[in-house]
Amino acid sequence: MFKEIISTQITETTGNILLAKTPAVIIPLGFKGAGVFCGIKKRKKDLALILSDSPATAAGVFTTNIVQAAPLLICKEHLSERETFRALIINSGNANACTGEQGYYDASIMASLTALELGLEKNEVLVSSTGVIGETLPMTKIAEGIKTITSEISSIDQDKEQKMQNAAEAIMTTDTFSKTASSTFLINGKEVTIYGMAKGSGMIHPNMATMLGFILTDAAIEKNLLQSMLKNAANKTFNRIIVDGDTSTNDMVLAFANGASDAKIMLESPEHYIFEDELHALLKKLSLDIVRDGEGATKLIEITVDGAESIEDAEKIGRTIALSPLVKTAIHGEDANWGRIIAAAGYSGIKFDPAQFQIFVNGTKILGSNYSVQLSIEEANKTLELDYIYLTIKIGNGNYSATCWTCDFSEEYVKINGSYRS
Amino acid sequence: MFKEIISTQITETTGNILLAKTPAVIIPLGFKGAGVFCGIKKRKKDLALILSDSPATAAGVFTTNIVQAAPLLICKEHLSERETFRALIINSGNANACTGEQGYYDASIMASLTALELGLEKNEVLVSSTGVIGETLPMTKIAEGIKTITSEISSIDQDKEQKMQNAAEAIMTTDTFSKTASSTFLINGKEVTIYGMAKGSGMIHPNMATMLGFILTDAAIEKNLLQSMLKNAANKTFNRIIVDGDTSTNDMVLAFANGASDAKIMLESPEHYIFEDELHALLKKLSLDIVRDGEGATKLIEITVDGAESIEDAEKIGRTIALSPLVKTAIHGEDANWGRIIAAAGYSGIKFDPAQFQIFVNGTKILGSNYSVQLSIEEANKTLELDYIYLTIKIGNGNYSATCWTCDFSEEYVKINGSYRS
Repeated sequence: MFKEIISTQITETTGNILLAKTPAVIIPLGFKGAGVFCGIKKRKKDLALILSDSPATAAGVFTTNIVQAAPLLICKEHLSERETFRALIINSGNANACTGEQGYYDASIMASLTALELGLEKNEVLVSSTGVIGETLPMTKIAEGIKTITSEISSIDQDKEQKMQNAAEAIMTTDTFSKTASSTFLINGKEVTIYGMAKGSGMIHPNMATMLGFILTDAAIEKNLLQSMLKNAANKTFNRIIVDGDTSTNDMVLAFANGASDAKIMLESPEHYIFEDELHALLKKLSLDIVRDGEGATKLIEITVDGAESIEDAEKIGRTIALSPLVKTAIHGEDANWGRIIAAAGYSGIKFDPAQFQIFVNGTKILGSNYSVQLSIEEANKTLELDYIYLTIKIGNGNYSATCWTCDFSEEYVKINGSYRS
Repeated sequence: MFKEIISTQITETTGNILLAKTPAVIIPLGFKGAGVFCGIKKRKKDLALILSDSPATAAGVFTTNIVQAAPLLICKEHLSERETFRALIINSGNANACTGEQGYYDASIMASLTALELGLEKNEVLVSSTGVIGETLPMTKIAEGIKTITSEISSIDQDKEQKMQNAAEAIMTTDTFSKTASSTFLINGKEVTIYGMAKGSGMIHPNMATMLGFILTDAAIEKNLLQSMLKNAANKTFNRIIVDGDTSTNDMVLAFANGASDAKIMLESPEHYIFEDELHALLKKLSLDIVRDGEGATKLIEITVDGAESIEDAEKIGRTIALSPLVKTAIHGEDANWGRIIAAAGYSGIKFDPAQFQIFVNGTKILGSNYSVQLSIEEANKTLELDYIYLTIKIGNGNYSATCWTCDFSEEYVKINGSYRS
């Protein structure tokens, strides 16, 4: 239902990044993509390649799960070994996680084979995987796939937007739509583009590794600066989408900057902040697409905690509310049970004065301080009838706030996750 | 389904505390109970009273939620003011939580009126409430109810077991059955009984406050010792049942020891440990009854984490697995997705070597060290076909372990919690 309404609104609104599905995207200069089927999945595209024509600086943020899939180990090694990179090879359908030494070896081979076909150094290639945990990669199929995709990437039978779109589709697992976005803006009179693709489907699918994001830009950005901007932006976007609290073994976001636009981003220059804002907006859009594609999701919920003593406090309370099955099922049922929200905040571990607690739904105050109820139950429930719920919580008079996003919790989620392999 | 099977097994098994519903219980000497309907709920009993004929020491453990309902404040005050107590008054249908100064005043009045009718000091009476959050108590009805129940408690028209059972029923909210247990054993040749009643329904109901437990014994136990035994036992039982992670504003467990058996429990005597073991077993039984009565629950899951470096580590990993919607939906669907279990352990915040991780289901090893899969998917799934799942996780070679309990996660839970008020 939710997704249908989204689709309807695309035709009715323009420029609403929060509600619109991906508009036409622009690929940054000097990048190519390709996506093919190599046989890991049954039918759908399952191998993606991204190539920069020239050396690109790269940065990465990775899952905090101590169980880390083999491709993450390879990426971290390569990122520590050099400044610039040329290619990224990604498979879906198999996460290469919990596969031990064999998995490490296989991920390493994926980089080697891609490098061999493209005439690169092995450590100029980064590797990513997503899919089922605990099975080793079908390396014969992948080796053949790498031959196909490295030849495909330079072919001229399709436009480069379509080929990059193939890559975006090849990284999908349970996603019901591909998630891409781009932004083009001027830096010192030069056009700069940031492009991103992501995969991940809100409520995490059973034994699928979860969230991948790949960001490409034709700006020139020194590696450390790219790393710090990516980390900051991811912390406020990908790390602020809360689904079921399960953190995957394969989550990663990589960024590449190849400088093909001739626009250079210097640390603490005005351009730095322009670029950082654009990057943040782009990652936010991809993040919301992931929540929106949540298994069984019918409502997107934005939670802003205000009046906190620190950003960390605000974030912790927001996360706890976003994670509460009681809050998520209540919003699903359009039941403005404010008791569940204040109770969730109360066990977040952050101290506040409950008598100061106020709750606003889509701008309407439903609970004032000293537990003063502002609306009848029927009126309060009406505030939840939208598909995009803005929940604002004021916990005191502090100067800090934080926003996070989640989706509601429907019967459908349990159905999907309980019956995946049976 | 689960509950029906439980009922069947009652008739087929004897002495199986894990599977049997409450057998006939024995009330400790010198305690009386009563339960009546006073009009807070629509029809069912909603006011309970427990009375000790002689002064009883008392102890309490309370929710860690910083939003604490008014009756908890009163209990803590009274417990800090004196050594012995005589009565406990409890209402269901309204939690008296998030009710500010009015709520505090109302809870105080409940103690005063009960004391007045019974000829006690106000602070000899403890108070408890459970039910809807955010509404003030209907004090006229409660005042009338207290008159009725204080006269009822001494009437001789019913046996004392039946009247205590009425109390156990009057504290229920969404519970589908009352939860009571007793244990009688010898201490220095004297018969000692511990009796307990609890309420709470696994997955917490929308805006109902959650878990109450009241323990009565006719042993003589000094207040500090009772407090330490209650806290230890609750930590390994009531605090180890993990449902949806929502911690209520009203959770409390109170214990009363009136010495009517003439058996005295001295600190660090052999009797101390006998009594502590019996108390632990009783609280465990009540705890499992709460999980078993979980909204939509079809399987009870016991998770033991073994080989940890500390009990705290083992408990943290167990809790994280027990809280994972992905693990709980997988077990509901009888899908032995071990990747979800290891991934959940991996984000628990506790360090371990994932290659050492082993998983046993009902005694059958499904994952060995170095990620060695022991069974086919079909065989592994078969291990989950029981209604009581013992999940054993070995994370290394440490000397510590911890056990916790949860239930599976079904579509029914979302249905119940999403449509409660609509």
